[in-house]
Amino acid sequence: MAKINENYVKLQAGYLFPEIGRRVREFQSNNPDAKIIKMGIGDVILPLAPSVIQAFHEGVDEMSKQETFKGYGPEQGYEFLRRAISKNEYKDRNVNISEDEVFISDGAKCDTGNILEIFGQKNVIAVQDPVYPVYVDTIVMAGRTGQIQKNGYYENLIYMPCTADNDFIPEIPSQKIDIVFLCYPNNPTGTTVSKSELKKWIDYALQNNTVILYDAAYEAYISEKDIPHSIYEIEGAKEVAIEFRSYSKTAGFTGTRCAYTVIPKTLKGYGPDGKEHSLHALWYRRQSTKFNQVSYPVQKAAAAVYSSSGKNEIRKIISYYMENAQIMRESMAKIGFDVYGGLNAPYVWINSGKGLTSWELFDKILKEAHVVGTPGSGFGPSGEGYFRFSAFAARENVIEAMDRLKNLNF
Amino acid sequence: MAKINENYVKLQAGYLFPEIGRRVREFQSNNPDAKIIKMGIGDVILPLAPSVIQAFHEGVDEMSKQETFKGYGPEQGYEFLRRAISKNEYKDRNVNISEDEVFISDGAKCDTGNILEIFGQKNVIAVQDPVYPVYVDTIVMAGRTGQIQKNGYYENLIYMPCTADNDFIPEIPSQKIDIVFLCYPNNPTGTTVSKSELKKWIDYALQNNTVILYDAAYEAYISEKDIPHSIYEIEGAKEVAIEFRSYSKTAGFTGTRCAYTVIPKTLKGYGPDGKEHSLHALWYRRQSTKFNQVSYPVQKAAAAVYSSSGKNEIRKIISYYMENAQIMRESMAKIGFDVYGGLNAPYVWINSGKGLTSWELFDKILKEAHVVGTPGSGFGPSGEGYFRFSAFAARENVIEAMDRLKNLNF
Repeated sequence: MAKINENYVKLQAGYLFPEIGRRVREFQSNNPDAKIIKMGIGDVILPLAPSVIQAFHEGVDEMSKQETFKGYGPEQGYEFLRRAISKNEYKDRNVNISEDEVFISDGAKCDTGNILEIFGQKNVIAVQDPVYPVYVDTIVMAGRTGQIQKNGYYENLIYMPCTADNDFIPEIPSQKIDIVFLCYPNNPTGTTVSKSELKKWIDYALQNNTVILYDAAYEAYISEKDIPHSIYEIEGAKEVAIEFRSYSKTAGFTGTRCAYTVIPKTLKGYGPDGKEHSLHALWYRRQSTKFNQVSYPVQKAAAAVYSSSGKNEIRKIISYYMENAQIMRESMAKIGFDVYGGLNAPYVWINSGKGLTSWELFDKILKEAHVVGTPGSGFGPSGEGYFRFSAFAARENVIEAMDRLKNLNF
Repeated sequence: MAKINENYVKLQAGYLFPEIGRRVREFQSNNPDAKIIKMGIGDVILPLAPSVIQAFHEGVDEMSKQETFKGYGPEQGYEFLRRAISKNEYKDRNVNISEDEVFISDGAKCDTGNILEIFGQKNVIAVQDPVYPVYVDTIVMAGRTGQIQKNGYYENLIYMPCTADNDFIPEIPSQKIDIVFLCYPNNPTGTTVSKSELKKWIDYALQNNTVILYDAAYEAYISEKDIPHSIYEIEGAKEVAIEFRSYSKTAGFTGTRCAYTVIPKTLKGYGPDGKEHSLHALWYRRQSTKFNQVSYPVQKAAAAVYSSSGKNEIRKIISYYMENAQIMRESMAKIGFDVYGGLNAPYVWINSGKGLTSWELFDKILKEAHVVGTPGSGFGPSGEGYFRFSAFAARENVIEAMDRLKNLNF
């Protein structure tokens, strides 16, 4: 009798975004004339940059001729792309990450979920709260937690509240942790971490042989100086951190699919006998056995992000979204909300205040202004009372949405 | 202290193909003038079909304009592709698989590895021997076996020998099994299964609530009548089988990446309380949480396989490879080898006979003829004494390789 993975039964409701989709569809079908403006899910809307498109076409052309056709590619991804990443993302910023330490993949979401496979079941794992739901769901699905409790936390998982009270920087837990997920610029709060705060985490990790899973998918949105783009800017990080990056938000690749994960060769995990093992080698084994790399024309398109024309085009796209964020920040502040994020990330995080829960605010805004955001509580208990707007929207929609919200009675 | 997944330590040496690569590189560096002909790894060499290329370009063009740009796609893959699959691969062959039962993915290798995640750890799993190494390695990595034993078998995994003695059709084991991997047309042996033999497996599965993981990645190479293209051609299969298909070998997508997995909505797994759970729902949850679908232009390219021009072009490509297989079959038979497969699959499986082990034959052929094949023992203990040639090679290379082999002294 084929037995299921019973950990799936522990999962709560659906993934957050399907639930939002359900409520929006229901409202739309009851109000067919309502022009709903969606600023919920973090999905890009601007087309791929011209340089990226050109390289994408060239890659497809290469697949059309026997002399240039590509079958299975190198197991970590093409060297031309890994070299461009090593140079542009790291070495040009004085961070010594070599092309051998970069693994190309089809998404940071996939990698942040799959990475747990190389770690034993008995690690104590910590996550920020609120948190990108994928981390928690994959931890649950892998049987690394107990049941969900009344407070909304799964047993055997450490939650680190991040609220306005602590500037959205988690306190290091008193219980020893083996693996910690940190995401900066943060999804969902749009907030950042300073080098000195991050240094505390690295020192902790060095002392405790903890591995930091550092999700920097929104790194390209950093506009302020002194905010670290990579965890490897901080000394010691190459001994303790895996970094996840993606072209999804950086270059509009949510439907094109390309990302990368950096695992320094100096990074170690420990066997039951205390013996050191290279996490790079384990991930290489995982990826070469269970993954077959990213489409060649897509890798070629991703590399064009680093051409000089590509860089300019990408910068303009990011500016467009960040101007949206600025408009949202100002409008929400004027209405009287507390506003966070949106300066170095495409997410604006507001405190709904006004005595409403996150989902109550969601329903009010949907019903009265026909605007969709994301309820903060969907990202974890400490997100209750907060609400997220995504800056990935057309300018005219952002302006109209803000106008509609101004007229609501909060 | 971050503890590793210690199951990785159980894995033997590298994955087969890296080891072949290592020996070939070593030989080449010692013999820089040798013109090595590679017929080892199953990687295609002919370019993508013109219709596929055209659709691929169109997909890229859509990504260049805001009106047609695509961000995150539907979580099971685009409907246009799933509908084309349902129609062309199934309904046109009188098999009732709906588009809702199809999940697009980036590879059958990924899916056959990841599928185990939805099943509990305590299932008894059976594999064919010889076997596509990915199944066994992923089973080991997921902690579903004990250590490897002297006979080359991992503890707690059921191996079903497939040799010339049983026409490469596994006997149903005496021990009850919960999950079984079956691959037809078979990789590595190139052999097929008849409908009546497959029916025995389905009857067994129906009686025992066993799930059959049916890998049909080479289905498009079937030329003989009455060989099932899909397990769903046999009554009852929709209650017990998951089918894996791929464009890798069908349409030359090894470097382009697109595949699909069919999970009928009627398929059930069982909770610890014996309660039925939809495996379709569990896989949907897995894929929507840990995967973000295939690049839009790639899905568009894959759909072009089903255009009338696409079908003709693909047929010609497959014929080219199968003519290679025919040449190899005839040549190897003339030399005096027992020859299997190669009629409905791009793999020719020979019995090295002559008192040589598979790796001895590998080394002899490499050193004396500068030809690379795959040692049968690399696919499992019952592959010992056998050897695989892949028909994915240029015609002139196949002819030259066969000429060189004829002159060897076996």
